[in-house]
Amino acid sequence: MKDFAVYGDICYAKKPDKPECMEDSYVVCVDGKCAGVFDVLPEKFKGIEVINFDNKIITPGFVDLHVHAPQYSYRGLGMDLELLDWLDTITFPEEAKYADKDYAARAYEVFVGDLKKSATTRASIFATIHKDATIELMRQLEAAGLSCYVGKVNMDRNSPDSYRETAEESVRTTIEWLDESSDFAHVKPIITPRFVPSCTDGLMRELGKIADERSLPVQSHLSENLSEIEWVKELAPDSRGYADAYDRFGLFGNAGSCVMAHCIYMRDDEIELMKERGVFVAHSPQSNMNIRSGIAPMRRFLDEGIKCGLASDVAGGSSINMFKALTDAIQVSKLYWRLIDESRKALTFPEAFYLATKGGGEFFGKVGSFEEGYEFDAIAIDDSMARTNLQLNISQRLERTMYLGHAGFIKAKFVAGRRLF
Amino acid sequence: MKDFAVYGDICYAKKPDKPECMEDSYVVCVDGKCAGVFDVLPEKFKGIEVINFDNKIITPGFVDLHVHAPQYSYRGLGMDLELLDWLDTITFPEEAKYADKDYAARAYEVFVGDLKKSATTRASIFATIHKDATIELMRQLEAAGLSCYVGKVNMDRNSPDSYRETAEESVRTTIEWLDESSDFAHVKPIITPRFVPSCTDGLMRELGKIADERSLPVQSHLSENLSEIEWVKELAPDSRGYADAYDRFGLFGNAGSCVMAHCIYMRDDEIELMKERGVFVAHSPQSNMNIRSGIAPMRRFLDEGIKCGLASDVAGGSSINMFKALTDAIQVSKLYWRLIDESRKALTFPEAFYLATKGGGEFFGKVGSFEEGYEFDAIAIDDSMARTNLQLNISQRLERTMYLGHAGFIKAKFVAGRRLF
Repeated sequence: MKDFAVYGDICYAKKPDKPECMEDSYVVCVDGKCAGVFDVLPEKFKGIEVINFDNKIITPGFVDLHVHAPQYSYRGLGMDLELLDWLDTITFPEEAKYADKDYAARAYEVFVGDLKKSATTRASIFATIHKDATIELMRQLEAAGLSCYVGKVNMDRNSPDSYRETAEESVRTTIEWLDESSDFAHVKPIITPRFVPSCTDGLMRELGKIADERSLPVQSHLSENLSEIEWVKELAPDSRGYADAYDRFGLFGNAGSCVMAHCIYMRDDEIELMKERGVFVAHSPQSNMNIRSGIAPMRRFLDEGIKCGLASDVAGGSSINMFKALTDAIQVSKLYWRLIDESRKALTFPEAFYLATKGGGEFFGKVGSFEEGYEFDAIAIDDSMARTNLQLNISQRLERTMYLGHAGFIKAKFVAGRRLF
Repeated sequence: MKDFAVYGDICYAKKPDKPECMEDSYVVCVDGKCAGVFDVLPEKFKGIEVINFDNKIITPGFVDLHVHAPQYSYRGLGMDLELLDWLDTITFPEEAKYADKDYAARAYEVFVGDLKKSATTRASIFATIHKDATIELMRQLEAAGLSCYVGKVNMDRNSPDSYRETAEESVRTTIEWLDESSDFAHVKPIITPRFVPSCTDGLMRELGKIADERSLPVQSHLSENLSEIEWVKELAPDSRGYADAYDRFGLFGNAGSCVMAHCIYMRDDEIELMKERGVFVAHSPQSNMNIRSGIAPMRRFLDEGIKCGLASDVAGGSSINMFKALTDAIQVSKLYWRLIDESRKALTFPEAFYLATKGGGEFFGKVGSFEEGYEFDAIAIDDSMARTNLQLNISQRLERTMYLGHAGFIKAKFVAGRRLF
């Protein structure tokens, strides 16, 4: 891979309190990694290719910590339903179709094509229970140049016959899937029990073993909806709570990294356990509004040092646009402050920008910033598409771009130094 | 004006419970008004021009019941501030610049250009205190073909010297502005006391007289923010409440139509008065999140028969996209149900579509529907821009378009039979 520099108006987060913003500057890529941000290119980099994005905003790529690829086709549909009804009426029947690999290939082409054009450079993705369709999704993401985790979903209870495995099938196809997906350079498997209601104790136990033996990351859902939490209490009477229903099977950051979507209704001891284990919260504000779940206590998570990132949660969320996830996170945190607890300050713009880039990026390693040694994930944004007569400074331009921008604003994208477009 | 028909997949609201959706149909325009929707063009219309929008969704134009034109330049900026700080820090200094008519002309070109391309066909607009700049805004809107109410803002207290009138100046320039703006065919004046904290009793009294003498509509702000409400109590100690602080001067639907933005914290007797007077609520969910105001009790307003429409409230809201106002209204109503009062059901998609078209349209007369006799406001939407592999029916396509669409989806627009593009 050739070294290069990107020239433009550069914004990235080191810390949550304030983004680093440098106009007319260079971010240098050496061996796929950031080698620094400079207002004048240092002598040692003279002669490398400079890609000119004059007047464009250059940010790290955005990180979507939780998204369901097979739900992309029906994003923005059926939004008058609550979680459990929405799963039964729309989600399970549609995901069942992915037993047909050709159907999956056609549907995933739309998802992967749009994800490629979006602000997202890294995503942690749910597929379906189907091995072949999941491999097909991974193949398409790899071809698109994206760096993602993808999970074959495991489900052996509480879904229609047409969309359920036995525990034995689920374990067998998971192992086959893991063996077959070992060749991808940038797309990696992640163990994915759908959520406690979908997985028997026996299946959970086997998945915990696989994650441990193969040192694999884990993703699932946690404490999204009050009815769901009540149901988990019935289904897992021996567990001390929803988090423990994963933890007791080694699926809560016990062996490797772990990300849990939502985390809206968390007990003190569960938050303590997340902190201890380094479990990530995938905060999905749009989904939490759409399917009426509530608002996650993000200020508390940040105050307590919980690892957090943002997520689209398509198709609970309607859009894969992570700019929208960022501003939605700010907006719902303001309602949290106003309606639930005035001691928990709203997220600021700099904090949300941090979460959408470096916060979630940490799940992928040194990702989501332009600090030295970070993987070179970047996008170039043409913010002039949102017109104004005002002369704005770079941090103002960054803020408004998040409120107004969409994929059409994104003119170039790099993942770990690879230029996607 | 020549009669014509528009052909496409037609969706419009008669009632809040369910949109009327007819694929491959015609909506006919005679003398600028709707003459019906037909799956086969009736004999009497044979020979009229048919404008073909095959596979496009045709809806009535959207109605933005509350938007600040001079705030468009800084939409999406300074969103970490609450209402009163945001007014002092950003809003008043920027609006003060519109004393320069040339500055206003340049800034309004951006707003009007973008409004023309948006889903909005009707808007009730705040300008600034400046007569000439307000006339310039009206001139540009008229030239763009939009049908709007525009208000020269009145403010004689609690703003910087550079952006405040005396009561006498305010009355005099209001009358001059009304006289000078009488020539516009489609853009009409509306009396616009900014809000109670900005207007002395003396000014309010004179504005009430003007509205009454000239039978003019009135727009203002009501019960947006808790600190603002406390302040109004101090400023208007003799009034029975915030609504009464308008009502006692004849500015609350006493003589003509009236629209009040926000209405988040309303007392029972105030809601009763709104109903009695037919005062419209301009519900601005995005703004209410951004500047931390709260959530308006929309279900209660609908249950009690209050007239309601939706609004962008730029730049409290960041976007003039009324599709977003529609889905934001649904989303915050779900949080209202979850967090404030589970007896108040969330808005459904059909209800929000009704509010965004016919609900707010009523403020402009027979506007916002394709029922016979309604003014022919329409947009043609290319929903194929949000790709999917699924075959969707027309009502599904309508729902997802609201969640995913923006101005780029809009391929044609008509206002009262005039084609804008």
